[in-house]
Amino acid sequence: MSETIRVLDKGYVEFVDLLGGDEAAVRAARISYMSKSDPKKDDNLIDLLMRLGHESPFEHIVFTFHIKAPIFVARQWMRHRMASVNERSGRFTEFDEEFYLPEEKRVGIPVDLMRESMERSFENYKKLISSGVKKEVARMILPLSIYTEWYWTINVRSMMNFLNQRADSHAQYEIQQYAVKIADFFKMKCPITYDSFLRNAYKGDLLRERL
Amino acid sequence: MSETIRVLDKGYVEFVDLLGGDEAAVRAARISYMSKSDPKKDDNLIDLLMRLGHESPFEHIVFTFHIKAPIFVARQWMRHRMASVNERSGRFTEFDEEFYLPEEKRVGIPVDLMRESMERSFENYKKLISSGVKKEVARMILPLSIYTEWYWTINVRSMMNFLNQRADSHAQYEIQQYAVKIADFFKMKCPITYDSFLRNAYKGDLLRERL
Amino acid sequence: MSETIRVLDKGYVEFVDLLGGDEAAVRAARISYMSKSDPKKDDNLIDLLMRLGHESPFEHIVFTFHIKAPIFVARQWMRHRMASVNERSGRFTEFDEEFYLPEEKRVGIPVDLMRESMERSFENYKKLISSGVKKEVARMILPLSIYTEWYWTINVRSMMNFLNQRADSHAQYEIQQYAVKIADFFKMKCPITYDSFLRNAYKGDLLRERL
Amino acid sequence: MSETIRVLDKGYVEFVDLLGGDEAAVRAARISYMSKSDPKKDDNLIDLLMRLGHESPFEHIVFTFHIKAPIFVARQWMRHRMASVNERSGRFTEFDEEFYLPEEKRVGIPVDLMRESMERSFENYKKLISSGVKKEVARMILPLSIYTEWYWTINVRSMMNFLNQRADSHAQYEIQQYAVKIADFFKMKCPITYDSFLRNAYKGDLLRERL
Repeated sequence: MSETIRVLDKGYVEFVDLLGGDEAAVRAARISYMSKSDPKKDDNLIDLLMRLGHESPFEHIVFTFHIKAPIFVARQWMRHRMASVNERSGRFTEFDEEFYLPEEKRVGIPVDLMRESMERSFENYKKLISSGVKKEVARMILPLSIYTEWYWTINVRSMMNFLNQRADSHAQYEIQQYAVKIADFFKMKCPITYDSFLRNAYKGDLLRERL
Repeated sequence: MSETIRVLDKGYVEFVDLLGGDEAAVRAARISYMSKSDPKKDDNLIDLLMRLGHESPFEHIVFTFHIKAPIFVARQWMRHRMASVNERSGRFTEFDEEFYLPEEKRVGIPVDLMRESMERSFENYKKLISSGVKKEVARMILPLSIYTEWYWTINVRSMMNFLNQRADSHAQYEIQQYAVKIADFFKMKCPITYDSFLRNAYKGDLLRERL
Repeated sequence: MSETIRVLDKGYVEFVDLLGGDEAAVRAARISYMSKSDPKKDDNLIDLLMRLGHESPFEHIVFTFHIKAPIFVARQWMRHRMASVNERSGRFTEFDEEFYLPEEKRVGIPVDLMRESMERSFENYKKLISSGVKKEVARMILPLSIYTEWYWTINVRSMMNFLNQRADSHAQYEIQQYAVKIADFFKMKCPITYDSFLRNAYKGDLLRERL
Repeated sequence: MSETIRVLDKGYVEFVDLLGGDEAAVRAARISYMSKSDPKKDDNLIDLLMRLGHESPFEHIVFTFHIKAPIFVARQWMRHRMASVNERSGRFTEFDEEFYLPEEKRVGIPVDLMRESMERSFENYKKLISSGVKKEVARMILPLSIYTEWYWTINVRSMMNFLNQRADSHAQYEIQQYAVKIADFFKMKCPITYDSFLRNAYKGDLLRERL
């Protein structure tokens, strides 16, 4: 499995780096009791933490991702405050003509009007830039579907909360697609914690169907 | 002075509520030394806290505001994580035709192209809605200049950080306008703390000119 | 009901101030839908938020308390990071001879040994101070039962988490006593939110018995 | 240099793990401008971030340490809320007879009285335990100098704030000793960031003398 997973028509989730892993949560939890790691019991310990809602040991596992997503998705994403973000600036860089165009089955009618509207907005953006208007002003007319990107560093406790809310059918379809990819990396890198999360603490529905 | 201040062409900052005030910071600071409030010395104490960077007592002063601003301003605003936000949803409400149109002197060229582009986008949004497209999908074509609104609860320590960064000429013009209005309410409600902040701890420039 | 409630043998919880109340959570929640407050429906709305785990609107209700408690309780208390604390300093103030002596039924044997041990430690502390030893050094010999005090500002979302963990029979007996008093003030000041919390979201057991 | 550094008479700072490093901060900062890393310019970029107070890119560097320190030091330490902590429990484990005894030159008078007082308290603790008193009750008589230990995960932005306050002559001597060891690991693992921090953003004094 590659370390970059495509999402939507032009976005992606790229795994960048990881602090700790299953064993870091176990180690942190065991200090309460000054007990030593025991491979036979570590899985049970993680289950116990999840069931009791003792989530602090999972803060010692920290992921960094590189995300590319439409701005309306980024807006929902940034509500998760317990994370670190550095994002491409629309003041200092010129946007590329990359906007998210939903599939017709998602929209319900032909997407031509949406495409034309976005293209027209982008043409106007380019005209303004050519006329010497500042990037930070010209971008005001760009649509919410334009792609942006950011680095995202988040610990697993906060990431589980993100998954509870975004890997769920009540979230908007587009951020759901990102959330399940985040979950894929979570599963790949911390298989014991992920499995226990799904069985004991996950409050959403999308990941459950993938069990 | 009204409790609502207009900002930009259609936005505002509305003061909603306040926890504590100058005296709450003094009270919290004095517990370190178990000393009693002394009106003659309280101003000096606040100056001392500001100069030494002892900012925790200012966390006991908390403001709630109601803000209306364009989405590109909201995006910059939400980077301040030490605050509480509930925002109007573009999934559950239909946007009004209210977008920010910068003044010509700010853009440098006639704003007709910007206005037309925004109006066209909004017309298309209405067409999509009329065709039965979901609000959460239709809004993808709306421009970043469309107005949104939110409640914002923030303590004064975090608010001072907001002012350091946003009430400063390096911030974008539009959020500067909001930041100085936030500062106006800060000054009105916590005059001693505000005055001391400006003299001892403020790192920006816009408020300094207003002294 | 007084605004100060005694806890343990020499401690207390004092209500100091409040930002918002039930209506502040309703107001913040309603902005998502741009709907107006409706007294007939507001209770149902709070129930809905609690059931769905939509806790952010409760961040707009913020309490300030003044707490006096033994240091071993303070240590458990400070683990709740989403709160603001200013505490009496053992470096800058001399401790009073106020330590918590548990009741005999709690200890299981006569408390004489505990009392004598604490008194002896305190005598030695006084001797060190008299000999010119710095307060910050002398206090190293003081027992964990010595009383300290602090201001505590916390929003209701974080306070509910505090109650889930501390107003529960798995917490230590002493902090339980404080937690139920915090709950008393919560109930008094935000009756609708408190009632809904208990019915829909509370994960502990002690408050349930008090329903 | 070993990955564990002794501190005070029985404590230590152990480096456990690291997410990112100098390059992670550069990478996060460069996304604003969508510019590529350039070894010749990366040092200058870090200097620029430090000088301007653009600290968010440093949140993508995260350390995990294992700390052993007296409880009065732990109490000061835990005030730094932007970090993750799991600590040995005095409810579930019995304390060892390990207390911090300051050196005579620090106390100013012979430390015999302090040693005797701590030993007496510990003897009484053991007696209570032997009599069947719960660990969580017996420990109430233990002195603040008793050693505890914890895992600590913290990003570099928050760690720099810790160093500003604790690697400074206004902090208590004992926590100063820990802070300079934390700084040693910071320097070893992120030499460019550490060097730039000291030259551009550090507000304390102890580390400056070590330049």
